[in-house]
Amino acid sequence: MIIVMTSNASDEAIARVSAEIERMGSRPHLSRGKFRTVIGAMGEEGKIDESHIASLDGVEKVMPIMKPYKLASREFHEEDSVVMVGGGKTPQVPIGGSHAACIAGPCAVENEQMLRRIAGHVRDGGATILRGGVYKPRTSPYSFQGLGLQALKWMRETGDDLGMPICVEVMDTRQVADMEPFVDMFQIGARNMQNFDLLREVGKTTKPVLLKRGLAATVKDWLLSAEYVLSQGNKGVVLCERGIKTFEDSIRYTMDISSIPVARQWSHLPIIVDPSHAAGKRDLVGSLALAGMAAGAHGIIVEVHYNPAEAQCDGPQALLPEMFNELMGQLRQIAAVTKKEFAEIGEAVSA
Amino acid sequence: MIIVMTSNASDEAIARVSAEIERMGSRPHLSRGKFRTVIGAMGEEGKIDESHIASLDGVEKVMPIMKPYKLASREFHEEDSVVMVGGGKTPQVPIGGSHAACIAGPCAVENEQMLRRIAGHVRDGGATILRGGVYKPRTSPYSFQGLGLQALKWMRETGDDLGMPICVEVMDTRQVADMEPFVDMFQIGARNMQNFDLLREVGKTTKPVLLKRGLAATVKDWLLSAEYVLSQGNKGVVLCERGIKTFEDSIRYTMDISSIPVARQWSHLPIIVDPSHAAGKRDLVGSLALAGMAAGAHGIIVEVHYNPAEAQCDGPQALLPEMFNELMGQLRQIAAVTKKEFAEIGEAVSA
Amino acid sequence: MIIVMTSNASDEAIARVSAEIERMGSRPHLSRGKFRTVIGAMGEEGKIDESHIASLDGVEKVMPIMKPYKLASREFHEEDSVVMVGGGKTPQVPIGGSHAACIAGPCAVENEQMLRRIAGHVRDGGATILRGGVYKPRTSPYSFQGLGLQALKWMRETGDDLGMPICVEVMDTRQVADMEPFVDMFQIGARNMQNFDLLREVGKTTKPVLLKRGLAATVKDWLLSAEYVLSQGNKGVVLCERGIKTFEDSIRYTMDISSIPVARQWSHLPIIVDPSHAAGKRDLVGSLALAGMAAGAHGIIVEVHYNPAEAQCDGPQALLPEMFNELMGQLRQIAAVTKKEFAEIGEAVSA
Amino acid sequence: MIIVMTSNASDEAIARVSAEIERMGSRPHLSRGKFRTVIGAMGEEGKIDESHIASLDGVEKVMPIMKPYKLASREFHEEDSVVMVGGGKTPQVPIGGSHAACIAGPCAVENEQMLRRIAGHVRDGGATILRGGVYKPRTSPYSFQGLGLQALKWMRETGDDLGMPICVEVMDTRQVADMEPFVDMFQIGARNMQNFDLLREVGKTTKPVLLKRGLAATVKDWLLSAEYVLSQGNKGVVLCERGIKTFEDSIRYTMDISSIPVARQWSHLPIIVDPSHAAGKRDLVGSLALAGMAAGAHGIIVEVHYNPAEAQCDGPQALLPEMFNELMGQLRQIAAVTKKEFAEIGEAVSA
Repeated sequence: MIIVMTSNASDEAIARVSAEIERMGSRPHLSRGKFRTVIGAMGEEGKIDESHIASLDGVEKVMPIMKPYKLASREFHEEDSVVMVGGGKTPQVPIGGSHAACIAGPCAVENEQMLRRIAGHVRDGGATILRGGVYKPRTSPYSFQGLGLQALKWMRETGDDLGMPICVEVMDTRQVADMEPFVDMFQIGARNMQNFDLLREVGKTTKPVLLKRGLAATVKDWLLSAEYVLSQGNKGVVLCERGIKTFEDSIRYTMDISSIPVARQWSHLPIIVDPSHAAGKRDLVGSLALAGMAAGAHGIIVEVHYNPAEAQCDGPQALLPEMFNELMGQLRQIAAVTKKEFAEIGEAVSA
Repeated sequence: MIIVMTSNASDEAIARVSAEIERMGSRPHLSRGKFRTVIGAMGEEGKIDESHIASLDGVEKVMPIMKPYKLASREFHEEDSVVMVGGGKTPQVPIGGSHAACIAGPCAVENEQMLRRIAGHVRDGGATILRGGVYKPRTSPYSFQGLGLQALKWMRETGDDLGMPICVEVMDTRQVADMEPFVDMFQIGARNMQNFDLLREVGKTTKPVLLKRGLAATVKDWLLSAEYVLSQGNKGVVLCERGIKTFEDSIRYTMDISSIPVARQWSHLPIIVDPSHAAGKRDLVGSLALAGMAAGAHGIIVEVHYNPAEAQCDGPQALLPEMFNELMGQLRQIAAVTKKEFAEIGEAVSA
Repeated sequence: MIIVMTSNASDEAIARVSAEIERMGSRPHLSRGKFRTVIGAMGEEGKIDESHIASLDGVEKVMPIMKPYKLASREFHEEDSVVMVGGGKTPQVPIGGSHAACIAGPCAVENEQMLRRIAGHVRDGGATILRGGVYKPRTSPYSFQGLGLQALKWMRETGDDLGMPICVEVMDTRQVADMEPFVDMFQIGARNMQNFDLLREVGKTTKPVLLKRGLAATVKDWLLSAEYVLSQGNKGVVLCERGIKTFEDSIRYTMDISSIPVARQWSHLPIIVDPSHAAGKRDLVGSLALAGMAAGAHGIIVEVHYNPAEAQCDGPQALLPEMFNELMGQLRQIAAVTKKEFAEIGEAVSA
Repeated sequence: MIIVMTSNASDEAIARVSAEIERMGSRPHLSRGKFRTVIGAMGEEGKIDESHIASLDGVEKVMPIMKPYKLASREFHEEDSVVMVGGGKTPQVPIGGSHAACIAGPCAVENEQMLRRIAGHVRDGGATILRGGVYKPRTSPYSFQGLGLQALKWMRETGDDLGMPICVEVMDTRQVADMEPFVDMFQIGARNMQNFDLLREVGKTTKPVLLKRGLAATVKDWLLSAEYVLSQGNKGVVLCERGIKTFEDSIRYTMDISSIPVARQWSHLPIIVDPSHAAGKRDLVGSLALAGMAAGAHGIIVEVHYNPAEAQCDGPQALLPEMFNELMGQLRQIAAVTKKEFAEIGEAVSA
């Protein structure tokens, strides 16, 4: 940790900071420049309370050197993590390292029939994990909020029948225990990325977690949220870039493509992209998906509907089945360039 | 609602949109320009599913005319709302209209003694509501997370003894029932502004809610979150501007001062500012507080500590008691310019 | 144009707006809803002064339907434009449609020898246009500002000798006439994207213009700046996405990948990406370049240096020659997926 | 300067960085932590080329300790600067320290009569400097672009007759020499804040410069632009906060109120606010102006028009004369709270 003192910091102030660093078990290192004194705190950074030091008289700023997360860091775990999703009645699907995966399905489960129809479409197109919302976070209290546990059961049965593990969003700590027996992967939505109680709760389960990036979260914030899950013992975190809030208004959210190489440098966790929520419109989804894979992602999560005009949720961004098929073909080619591979169609099912 | 068709939209596509609008109980109004057709949907906008219309062939964009919230809107309730906080063993403190209030106290309750000492300071300086965190949302899982229910009881007792209603943050739906008997006002933090289950849960209580603005939330998003609380029957929502995420890195968050006049135009709800979390550093807190009042806010919420270097949370942004006193004097003068009034020191206590 | 009146707009206010629309040569179309009146202005939108209408009493907001640019719009020119760069002693290099191009070279020209060495490297790797700064926009007045006209002459001679057209940044209206005889393509930097006098001045020349996106510019703003150039008669505008300013601090600028499909929908102009300035660090450049091509760009502009530690400008972001070669190989594969083609190595030279 | 090495940096890499620091005339200070080595470069930071160091092998990041500007810094000049505007036939108006000033007038000069009428209004309301655009930066090439030198002469005559110095925007380096004899203060618009040639050109004149903050500029970027002007010998720089680009779409730009106390901590230069361009709508202008003064600004620049519906530019944001008068009354009260004073009405004239 580097502590920069103000240009007029007194000797007493400098001595006080040094003493506090020693009290916390580290060694202070003074460098007196012409205009300022800089103090380095050597030792284990985690033991020094940055906020406390920053409160002391004469301190201009405190700059941490170490990353504030540990279990999520590439330094802690050098190799890419591979997260396994599913098992039991479905095959296990790997995400991470050289394994790319496509998670697809409807935005929300509206009834059993539409779910089965869309699930069939996406499996035939090459998806190996089925998505579908049963609790929906909606900005308006007057919008469709999802069908709850009944829809979750349809998801489970459809996934089992088609050999696809299922990924379902959880919104409330009270839902975790009810959902755990049914899901293969919990999804944490962007708006809950810093719902710390929820992160802890899914961290206590044995199911992997798809952690979407918050709309105003830096990559560092995101990895700290992953750390919440990991710190409870759950090692199965998959990051998901889905766009951030910027001034650009020609698209719903700005997909931050650079977060993919940055997160991969800083962390061993797999990372996928969600082009549907970033785009908000189906004719932009394909370009974002291709860009995400080209930037090094381990796959995508995408919404598909055979009749978007009837979807109860986010219809404008759902791909038609034929668009999905074409996109998967292109994604396979791009994955080859970045040395990743999607499972062959039907491969997961027969595993 | 205005529907703009693409320049090459077919007559069939136009007819289909018109038919859908009629099916939803509204009247379509066609305007054929040289380059495009525009369709107005007259009637009750709430009945038309914007997303459905946007999914139809040939639709370029859908522009709503009405605000998407109702109970929170100035049109629904023309006069400024005045929210009453407290009662029982404490006086009732009004926020809204011409009533400004100062909510102050420590960031987190660390022990009973420090709480009582700071509470005494802020009451003497002019605060009428006591704040203090017992569950703390921390970006790192390794930071101090709060003392929980024990600290809440100290808050209650201190508030009762000093005649100050208490405002405490709630983070998890499972805490609401436990906290309700003790608190006078629930605080919803910025990171939970779109934790919709939590909004609904506090909306079912009888205690007013201080709703902080999310870091990436527009004023419209924020009022939609207020609508979640209001739609459950709880009329006591007070908005709190605490800064948004921007590219500027000289301060923790950018306080969006314009949200105050905008929210007051669009909504009847009271609005206060939180200069402490926006600033992150105590020497910027005063300027932001004064700016907020000058822009038309109904008060502030601010963190105070007699020894910030010992605070377990956010010490660098805590005001010293003498800074707080001076600030309150300036705030009273500014309130007079914008036709608002803070309670006199001691006034609330003797009520 | 759609004019939304406030909920309490008087009949006089509505009549006044209608009269003004008629005075400007369009027909007003009234739609009276339960809560508001909406007025459509049919006819040629360009003739209506939006700002004037927005100033009238009772107007809540004015929503344009048409795009504010014309010559840059896809509606004006349906087919992709192909911009030809070079000629005379060099081959002509096409950008746009199915033609992708790589513009490469040093950030700044430091001396003739380094320029020739780097130019040789990038030509051998597959670049067909040579870049090199002779006037440098630097945030600090104390940084290296470029060598001016002498360096421009080296660029011209090197380009001619190697058969590569040259692309050079212009910063000041007073430089345009001096530079025009030497350059094959003017570059307008991000910080000058709304330097309207400069846009007009290069618009009067016969050389194509590489127009970088401003750091705070929406795609709409950017196309309006292109319109400034086009409106002077110069049809050779190539757009260049180079990242926007956001809250994310793990990278210099956030490359907005979605601007590529959006700009291609709205406009016929070619668009390339500049991964070097977005990334700021060489180990992120490749991922951004690949993502840009995958999203549909017509090529890249990239900085290369054989000894970045000695570069006088932006050394940390310069690719080493071997990194550049490897990247070009990957870009060719991705271009094939999005149906574009880079010239073969040496192809342009022999043209 | 602090250099953080990567966790796997070799001893050779560390030695190379140290040697480079010595070569540049500073002393390296090594601190070897458990996970990383950190190198402090003591001495005059300006002599070390940050970019060069960042290019060396094994360097993770370079963190400057000193501010990158000098003449603009509070450390260089401890007292608040007071900039004098006008002289000759008009009084001299001070801005800075305890002196607040109001600059007011029309957005653009449309004809002599309207200019004189508005100038009279604003002088009577308390403005002491007259503003009025003669070259207008417009996002669309089809919008009104200003009347040029003829309008500048009307500004001069009106200012002289009313005893008000004039402030006029300059957009192009070629205009500086023509304008210098007429203006009392050059305005640099937000879109030209990093038009470095223009900054240098006005820096060579003897007239003070009103430097608006760029839409994507940090406070640091802004002070570096001020440094460009100051480095040419012109000491009369006044900063002007006018809003930054954020995701919030309820207002044109987000006025960053915190830039006022931050710029005042870091720099001795006076700072005013432009609420008109931030707001875009007249009913928000007052709140932003009051907030700016409360945050510590040295005044405002504001647009006024007696008939906004006829303004050729930015009519919706122009204050009516009576709104302006009321606002000035409130601003005087707020200025008293932050220990500043506006000239009395008529005071400047009689000077």
